[in-house]
Amino acid sequence: MVEGVHFRLDDGWASAGEVGHRALAGALSDLAAMGADAGEAYLALGLPAGFDERRALELVRAADALALQTGTAIVGGDVVVAPALFVSVTAIGWAEREDALVGRDGASAGDLVGVTGRLGAAAATLAALERGIAPPPAAAAALARARRPMPRLAEGRALAGAGARAMIDLSDGIATDAAHLAHASAVRLHIHLDSLPLHEGVGELAAALGVEPWRLAAGGGEDYELCFCAPAAARAQIERAVGEPGAVEVSWVGEVLAEAPGVTLSDDRGDPVRVEGYEHRWQ
Amino acid sequence: MVEGVHFRLDDGWASAGEVGHRALAGALSDLAAMGADAGEAYLALGLPAGFDERRALELVRAADALALQTGTAIVGGDVVVAPALFVSVTAIGWAEREDALVGRDGASAGDLVGVTGRLGAAAATLAALERGIAPPPAAAAALARARRPMPRLAEGRALAGAGARAMIDLSDGIATDAAHLAHASAVRLHIHLDSLPLHEGVGELAAALGVEPWRLAAGGGEDYELCFCAPAAARAQIERAVGEPGAVEVSWVGEVLAEAPGVTLSDDRGDPVRVEGYEHRWQ
Repeated sequence: MVEGVHFRLDDGWASAGEVGHRALAGALSDLAAMGADAGEAYLALGLPAGFDERRALELVRAADALALQTGTAIVGGDVVVAPALFVSVTAIGWAEREDALVGRDGASAGDLVGVTGRLGAAAATLAALERGIAPPPAAAAALARARRPMPRLAEGRALAGAGARAMIDLSDGIATDAAHLAHASAVRLHIHLDSLPLHEGVGELAAALGVEPWRLAAGGGEDYELCFCAPAAARAQIERAVGEPGAVEVSWVGEVLAEAPGVTLSDDRGDPVRVEGYEHRWQ
Repeated sequence: MVEGVHFRLDDGWASAGEVGHRALAGALSDLAAMGADAGEAYLALGLPAGFDERRALELVRAADALALQTGTAIVGGDVVVAPALFVSVTAIGWAEREDALVGRDGASAGDLVGVTGRLGAAAATLAALERGIAPPPAAAAALARARRPMPRLAEGRALAGAGARAMIDLSDGIATDAAHLAHASAVRLHIHLDSLPLHEGVGELAAALGVEPWRLAAGGGEDYELCFCAPAAARAQIERAVGEPGAVEVSWVGEVLAEAPGVTLSDDRGDPVRVEGYEHRWQ
């Protein structure tokens, strides 16, 4: 994650702690999407002139706190001088057996498409900052809680164990990420935009911004929820298994088709919709 | 490794291939200094505008070539946009048993201090570039060969197996690195500057620069040779063991004293000498 590319440090955008948290969360989220256990992480920091020790420690402490919550051991790294702040995280994951891991290439025609949690908070926050719009107070509080997303490690393992056969984490938004999964599996994913679970606050902010809420949920990145494909027969088992580790819900948002690889997004009338991707960048 | 901090890409300084080689070499060198086997490596690249695909591929191919030579598997990484070129390498090493690894903290009074290979090439090249002095032709050829230093993995394992009980790699120059080892071991290292093995070309270039050659050998970084401490009784065994993997020689350059932790550098008359560190930066 590079300052000015993936985040901004200006007032109201990202704090140093959020940068540290999100850098590790992003790396762990890729492990979650394979159903892996988090193991060791290595943190390389590039610190620019003027980024003082207090903020550097705030960044590292936030990463440490997330490591503790997720059972990750930060066991190495480096600190160097750099022209802009960057955080490079290498995270290693483990599984008891190689075949317990889930890739992006296992989706089959007829599978259901699901997502964990709720979407759109990161995109909504970014859009509000970019347009200089203050979110309504209730939405602001809900969106503030989403600034330190939790990688879905327990949910990823539960999904892998319960029959999910292709997974990806939502780092760029489902419109983009589902396409990666679709191409890897050589199938088409049909996503019903009105089925996407909206994060609290996204609806109110979308109204204030004058956009449909699903544009934020589908086109914006860094929610770090999981998108997965599973046979319809595994549906009940998956809902039970993901419910167990915590309070994260599963939503069924589409199905897998034996058509040309890619993604079809449709609105509440079933008409195809084009979602422009929000820039892959966090405040 | 960050452009403008650890290297420069200007004409005659570092090529993209040298940057890729040296970034991986520097990470593997830390493994060599523990007597570890190289395992997996992860490469994160930050590419600035104007750094084209041809040079990015040259950088990665040089890292790939070194990985092949050293038995390292580059198994992951990332490529992002950045304001300046950076290369962040995480390298994982392995040993059959934890106690086969050597730290920095095992040196004891009475031990000998040794180094592998020959020193000063990187510092000499850097000094010539900084002062705009062209090296004499024979020196230029020798120094050019040193632009892609080999991490001393086989030598590190041989040293660990033959009785070395503290090691560090020479990334900042022996004046600085021996001090790290001395403080970790709570001993004093006495280094005889006239015993330091000079890389071919360093003597001629030092003459052209008007400095004593040992200033380049002791004060300059990025030779990536190993500095180690071992009991005198292990001397013959170490010379045999390190000779086996290749043509890299061992030089004995000092001894460990039960005095206040730190480093004493002395000249050919035994008088103490102060060596100013060259900046930790490579062309």
